[in-house]
Amino acid sequence: MRTPTGESVLSRAVRIFEAFTPDAPALTVSEISRRTGLHLATASRLVAELVSHGFLARDADRRVRIGVRLWELGTRASPTLSLRDAAMPIMEGVHDVVGNHVQIGVLEGDEVLFLERLTAPGAVINYTRVAGRLPLHASSSGLVLLAHGPVDLQERILTGPLHAYTPHTITTATALRATLAAVRQQGYAYCPGYFHQDALGVAAPVRDSRGGVVAALSVVVPHDDGAASVVPVVRTAARGISRALAAQGAHGPHG
Amino acid sequence: MRTPTGESVLSRAVRIFEAFTPDAPALTVSEISRRTGLHLATASRLVAELVSHGFLARDADRRVRIGVRLWELGTRASPTLSLRDAAMPIMEGVHDVVGNHVQIGVLEGDEVLFLERLTAPGAVINYTRVAGRLPLHASSSGLVLLAHGPVDLQERILTGPLHAYTPHTITTATALRATLAAVRQQGYAYCPGYFHQDALGVAAPVRDSRGGVVAALSVVVPHDDGAASVVPVVRTAARGISRALAAQGAHGPHG
Repeated sequence: MRTPTGESVLSRAVRIFEAFTPDAPALTVSEISRRTGLHLATASRLVAELVSHGFLARDADRRVRIGVRLWELGTRASPTLSLRDAAMPIMEGVHDVVGNHVQIGVLEGDEVLFLERLTAPGAVINYTRVAGRLPLHASSSGLVLLAHGPVDLQERILTGPLHAYTPHTITTATALRATLAAVRQQGYAYCPGYFHQDALGVAAPVRDSRGGVVAALSVVVPHDDGAASVVPVVRTAARGISRALAAQGAHGPHG
Repeated sequence: MRTPTGESVLSRAVRIFEAFTPDAPALTVSEISRRTGLHLATASRLVAELVSHGFLARDADRRVRIGVRLWELGTRASPTLSLRDAAMPIMEGVHDVVGNHVQIGVLEGDEVLFLERLTAPGAVINYTRVAGRLPLHASSSGLVLLAHGPVDLQERILTGPLHAYTPHTITTATALRATLAAVRQQGYAYCPGYFHQDALGVAAPVRDSRGGVVAALSVVVPHDDGAASVVPVVRTAARGISRALAAQGAHGPHG
């Protein structure tokens, strides 16, 4: 089903969904039209149809939001649910002991996508959000997923621009290549101040029953001398999640 | 954009998403065609387009699954995220103390939709799943949401069939009406064996900063004499989540 301009209805619906972000969760139809580049009449008609399916919802003040039905359909049969079920009891244990932030992420496109995050009020700064993304070269989860990721992905990241978020971010292909080798050899990534000066990330791989890396478990703590003690906790927990996944007979989100 | 049969592309995409369930998370295109009633060629074409947008994904064995991108778009700007953020630290505390199952649900259509659930291995039987639904009259969360729900919803449920899941399920309008009044007056729902003989649910309302009930916090424990001690824990935690929501300035998922 193509419109006269040749773009499919589904592509336009995707553009509308993409217009909503954590910082802009409620938009007027005019704002949707502006953000998507769709004509106002087209945006208005598509929004009405998406509302009728519960994929979008209208506020009392007529602003539009993502509908709970979209979340429900995206979640209830999600291949990531088995990973989440295996991870959560163990993540809760880590959170009890370490505090701060504990999160689990998967490779999605050229970034880490975070599936779950446990956080404590007043903890160190952390940019992770549930359903949020971070760059592979600048986050501990990202380095673990990249170290065990496809060779073509590694080549793409190694030859692409490596943005410096802080003076500690890895920004050269040589340093990144050495870090990825170290992550594979040590079994974890240790990232003091790579993404934010005051924070330190530690991540370890979660494997499915066939040994493939399907996710990264990570902890973000204050960037200080005590952080090294977190390493064995994260490594042990990631192995526990791997075992729980194997016991489920699941193969992780990409299997 | 209507097809020759008059059904929109979006309606067909919705039918395809709905074909996937927790018990059938991976389907062949033929199975999708059978479950949706769409012609094989139509299903095949739509699946290919949904895969190109990441809304569906293909396994190594060519079976189709829900794509992580659908979950991401449904989650990252979801109006339920602020509720989840307010609830999770408090739910973790309840789970540490009570064990078993702790969950938070919202009213969606004529059912409870569960947004989050913390569970312990070996805990009492519980049918709740993340993104799963339960009937309003037979679950503690459902009774709380119904007791504070719109009058037309109450009338629809009171005059509709009330399915008996166990001998303890409320099945008459008179008993349900009295229970809803008690839930409002006491401030919680206490449901021994309503949905499963061996389980007991306790739920309390979560309110937004304007006092409206936006969610129900519930605990499912074994159906035995110790269960009454859970009531003050659930009530206190639900009030804590309400305060955390107010502090965020959020108005819950429907506001």
